[in-house]
Amino acid sequence: MASRTATRLVHPDRRELRFTTVLAALGDPVRLAIVARLADAGPDGELACTTFALPVSKSTQSGHFKVLREAGLIHQRNEGTRRLNRLRRDDVDARFPGLLDIAVPQGREVITNW
Amino acid sequence: MASRTATRLVHPDRRELRFTTVLAALGDPVRLAIVARLADAGPDGELACTTFALPVSKSTQSGHFKVLREAGLIHQRNEGTRRLNRLRRDDVDARFPGLLDIAVPQGREVITNW
Repeated sequence: MASRTATRLVHPDRRELRFTTVLAALGDPVRLAIVARLADAGPDGELACTTFALPVSKSTQSGHFKVLREAGLIHQRNEGTRRLNRLRRDDVDARFPGLLDIAVPQGREVITNW
Repeated sequence: MASRTATRLVHPDRRELRFTTVLAALGDPVRLAIVARLADAGPDGELACTTFALPVSKSTQSGHFKVLREAGLIHQRNEGTRRLNRLRRDDVDARFPGLLDIAVPQGREVITNW
């Protein structure tokens, strides 16, 4: 089996989300762009890591997804050889109402200006 | 003269404020607490660095103020041997409406839990 499928992906509970950790996670153009893309994929939208076409190396990209997951912003799961990502919009909106409404348009701007 | 008074304090213009830089600056409990204290000092409220009683060393504290200033969140000026800080609420509200309304209460919680 590939090692990836054996990796346990840890996700904080909604109540464990910390505001400063979430802000720090969103405080990077690549991560903000990822969040905007996932937001635009809709509430149940899942996107594979490979579909993002980010202007960074593959390992840097993986690091960014990890930061987002550990902050509680995204849910990740493995499906075969793919890693699928979903925005935890309900959880983030419940804990920090309005934050994603501000952040997502800013993330779209990042993408537009790439 | 003290070297401090000779230091030129650089402040970005309102239009130069970047969303991700502002989020990264707010994404730390000490800096978020500083912002909340300054917000509660009112629109023209200025507080000297020494009045914050933060749970970090003096040099770490200076670093945090610098990050906030360079992100455009606070204005700093020297008055004698004191360095006075003011929240750039108008500028941040103009560029990122609603962000401080979310962040300031979170910063107050940080202070409460210290």
